Amino acid sequence: MAEARKKKTVSKKERLRILPLGGLEQIGMNMTALEYGDSIIVIDCGLAFPDDDMLGVDLVIPDVSWLEENLSRVKAFFITHGHEDHIGALPYVLQRVPVPVYGTRLTMAIIEGKLEEHPAPDGVKRKVVSYGQTINAGAFSVEYIRVNHSIVDAAALAIGTPVGTLIHTGDFKIDYTPLFGEPADLARFAELGKKGVLALLCESTNIFREGFTVSEQWVRKNIDTMFAENQNSRIIVSTFASNVSRVQLIINTAAKYGKKVVVDGRSMVNILSAAVELGYIQVPDHCLISIEDLKRYPKEQTVLITTGSQGESMASLSRMAANIHRKVKIEPGDTIILSSAPIPGNEKAVAKVINDLQQLGANVIFQDTHVSGHACREEIKLIYALTKPKYAIPIHGEHRHRQEHAHMVHELGIPEEDIFLLHSGDVLEMNRDYAAVVDQVPVGSLMVDGLGVGDVGNIVLRDRQTLAQHGIIIAVAVLERGTNQLLSGPDIVTRGFVYVRENEELMEEAQSVVLNAIMHCQDRHVTDWSKIKNTIRDDLNDFLWKRMKRSPVILPIIMEA
Amino acid sequence: MAEARKKKTVSKKERLRILPLGGLEQIGMNMTALEYGDSIIVIDCGLAFPDDDMLGVDLVIPDVSWLEENLSRVKAFFITHGHEDHIGALPYVLQRVPVPVYGTRLTMAIIEGKLEEHPAPDGVKRKVVSYGQTINAGAFSVEYIRVNHSIVDAAALAIGTPVGTLIHTGDFKIDYTPLFGEPADLARFAELGKKGVLALLCESTNIFREGFTVSEQWVRKNIDTMFAENQNSRIIVSTFASNVSRVQLIINTAAKYGKKVVVDGRSMVNILSAAVELGYIQVPDHCLISIEDLKRYPKEQTVLITTGSQGESMASLSRMAANIHRKVKIEPGDTIILSSAPIPGNEKAVAKVINDLQQLGANVIFQDTHVSGHACREEIKLIYALTKPKYAIPIHGEHRHRQEHAHMVHELGIPEEDIFLLHSGDVLEMNRDYAAVVDQVPVGSLMVDGLGVGDVGNIVLRDRQTLAQHGIIIAVAVLERGTNQLLSGPDIVTRGFVYVRENEELMEEAQSVVLNAIMHCQDRHVTDWSKIKNTIRDDLNDFLWKRMKRSPVILPIIMEA
Repeated sequence: MAEARKKKTVSKKERLRILPLGGLEQIGMNMTALEYGDSIIVIDCGLAFPDDDMLGVDLVIPDVSWLEENLSRVKAFFITHGHEDHIGALPYVLQRVPVPVYGTRLTMAIIEGKLEEHPAPDGVKRKVVSYGQTINAGAFSVEYIRVNHSIVDAAALAIGTPVGTLIHTGDFKIDYTPLFGEPADLARFAELGKKGVLALLCESTNIFREGFTVSEQWVRKNIDTMFAENQNSRIIVSTFASNVSRVQLIINTAAKYGKKVVVDGRSMVNILSAAVELGYIQVPDHCLISIEDLKRYPKEQTVLITTGSQGESMASLSRMAANIHRKVKIEPGDTIILSSAPIPGNEKAVAKVINDLQQLGANVIFQDTHVSGHACREEIKLIYALTKPKYAIPIHGEHRHRQEHAHMVHELGIPEEDIFLLHSGDVLEMNRDYAAVVDQVPVGSLMVDGLGVGDVGNIVLRDRQTLAQHGIIIAVAVLERGTNQLLSGPDIVTRGFVYVRENEELMEEAQSVVLNAIMHCQDRHVTDWSKIKNTIRDDLNDFLWKRMKRSPVILPIIMEA
Repeated sequence: MAEARKKKTVSKKERLRILPLGGLEQIGMNMTALEYGDSIIVIDCGLAFPDDDMLGVDLVIPDVSWLEENLSRVKAFFITHGHEDHIGALPYVLQRVPVPVYGTRLTMAIIEGKLEEHPAPDGVKRKVVSYGQTINAGAFSVEYIRVNHSIVDAAALAIGTPVGTLIHTGDFKIDYTPLFGEPADLARFAELGKKGVLALLCESTNIFREGFTVSEQWVRKNIDTMFAENQNSRIIVSTFASNVSRVQLIINTAAKYGKKVVVDGRSMVNILSAAVELGYIQVPDHCLISIEDLKRYPKEQTVLITTGSQGESMASLSRMAANIHRKVKIEPGDTIILSSAPIPGNEKAVAKVINDLQQLGANVIFQDTHVSGHACREEIKLIYALTKPKYAIPIHGEHRHRQEHAHMVHELGIPEEDIFLLHSGDVLEMNRDYAAVVDQVPVGSLMVDGLGVGDVGNIVLRDRQTLAQHGIIIAVAVLERGTNQLLSGPDIVTRGFVYVRENEELMEEAQSVVLNAIMHCQDRHVTDWSKIKNTIRDDLNDFLWKRMKRSPVILPIIMEA
């Protein structure tokens, strides 16, 4: 692939630059900037969920220093769809980059919901865009094109630039028979391809899956069969709250079989009310009941739609599985449908929920209940065939997905030097004649923990990891001011180390190790507290390693009185 | 399923009891006891790897209190094969249950390796058993039957009891064309079936996979092709160290293509030397070289066989991927074959290794490189067809696997009341006329952390989880003996909380919160230290939650001087 850099002199005027600012090394933090002369636009503004070693971190957002430095040139954010990995960082980033935000109707409704909790700076314009509509932003014009995905109102973007058209697919699949709404606008892709596409930025998530993603109609048929076969059973269905088509499908199926529907789980309730208000979900009269009214109906006449399809420990279905749900108790005879697939990393949590539900006697169905929202290999090829781009820039997914995508594109006939496997921070310059990575800009990520953004860094995380492994031992002593004589202590306090009550002997030994360390320092007339602390730390560390092969955090504290 | 209990009076003499002592709720801790009159035997003695929330725990072993209580009747351990989830707890359990251990040759060699590090009590007999051999142990006779698995010398057990024959499959698959050794002894299963099998304890791991597990010959062909297509490249292959057939295959393929082999990674080196010594691996002359000699050969003439196929952070391949391997540096042009599949829970770690290796320029092959060691659905059916058991007891896998296994068995024609979905601790009593869960024995697990067995429990783990989330804040004050006047402090010390240097203002505010809490107590003449500490904790907790929405561990320490 063309990772080797080739340079040519290009007059400043005709410089188009593509800058992936996130999302390549850190899955989820999707954000791509386009720069031409005095104009910069940004596509998507996603967040990442923390890796396992980011203890206590709630979410990870892109560091947008480069955008801040170039703030006067930044025209707008263009959002492709309403998933967290495309919109989640907006509430934080808008504080620092307060520019207009564009997106389709449901996308903007979800963003508005977020901005109610984290208000945007005054005057930040938000605007709803329709499919087919084009927004001008400095040197760029951005057209929204309909695609299918696991959330409605998803869009690809055709971006007109002075040197040619770019297409950014967003997340997409092609469903010729979607349950609700229209198929992806393949005709528009073809039209653009005919006029000439400079570069295609296409997603890579399902590149390893052969063929085409099956239509949502297949899910509809299967769910219908499951309802038909379990008519005498209470049915509980969990799915992604943002998948409003799926929620509508479940409501429709429940109505068909004469069942009442309860919606449970905070995000499910929120999305449902927003989607109903916007007309994305139609609920038949008298179909929806409140969870409090559940007990007024025979069990087999009720359907619950819940969150928790990823085994998230606090979500509705997980609480049912753990038997700690306040209002719903799983009983033998209940049928539970997981209408979702585990996101990589959640496999074990989802399996635990399934096992726990089964042990409570429920009939759990987790196969043939879901289709992916992403394009498989042949769909990706189709988009290339329609748009015929000069340059290919695989985006989204992990590096291995983008690399496989690059291999596939090469097989489609695009020369290696026109395929770009970018890294976050790369600056890819291009026009009709050449394209090359010419520069790097600083990129990175900020960890959000509670209300703090960026105040948790690697040192804090390393401390948390050590604390998590073996806990902490604190040794406190009071020394006399001036003489350094031991006035009180040393006391040993621990957290997360061992059961203290069952290990009193160990604690007493640890105490004498510390006492000896202090005495030893006094004998040698050591008065420097940091030296005394180091002696305590080293001696205690040696003692614990020899005794139990553990290395807790050791924190000596000396007080003066 | 027959989870409902039915009881009948049976004279003490004819009581056969099956007691799963582990491995059902906690995957990996496989251990089943059989009891008849004065005889108890135990099948397997595995360990579990800690769940994500068992912070700092190295491994989990079964609590064998019941065996200890009945020690005089325990005759022996019969081990089915040498994987950790079948032998790993032996070094710990033998300390408390010092009885003879039986297993096939490689199984016992691996156990001996473990007992070198954790010696068994004096006089504990270990004995190698051959396929076809029968060991008498009290009321039981145990015959070893050849099966295929991802480790050689794996066995099913046919256990003769006074009331009939039980078959325990261990972990197995059927490979009609194994690379080395013989196919599973289907004839023996058929023979036993013809004579009559009382109960089949059959594994469930791959019950959701249709059809048959593909033969190792398929892997051989694919690996050969990969070597052929990458003759001008250094080849690095990672696999499970215990899969000696796979290691032999890689060595043979390397030899065929005239390449030298280096073995890297502690467990790989250990197993290789043991396997060569026992004759399980034949290395062609001059094929093996040491890692130090690597540089004496052109890269394309070398093959490395390494550990790290599960993305374990300290294993050889992971260190290469992270570019911290001391002796091997991945370079563009290297071909890396992951001859393994991720064990559930390891998917993300494995993906990270693949991505990192690719980013270093390596060609990483991770598809069509491995077959499972477990029987798929049709193989499991075949074992039932051959053995025709009266009772079916699905074992191994998660609850959802065993439940699906139970459904399948019912479809094979075994009545529901003869199928038992057991839980750890259940006592299943059976003879030719009836079978029922009649009792429960105490079971559980012990966490091993360093040298400590069982000294880490739920309270310690909960502390570690809180520490891991937001760190710890320690507030220390010295009060005057008798008067309770503040002599020194309060000082605030933190670990894993925030960068202190960048948050000095916050630290000062926290200090005044503590000072105010102490003063407030003095004003109200509170002298009880635990009350003072509670006030400090509550006030600091309120302050931090309001200020930053975080709840670190808060530890007030009062010293007297």
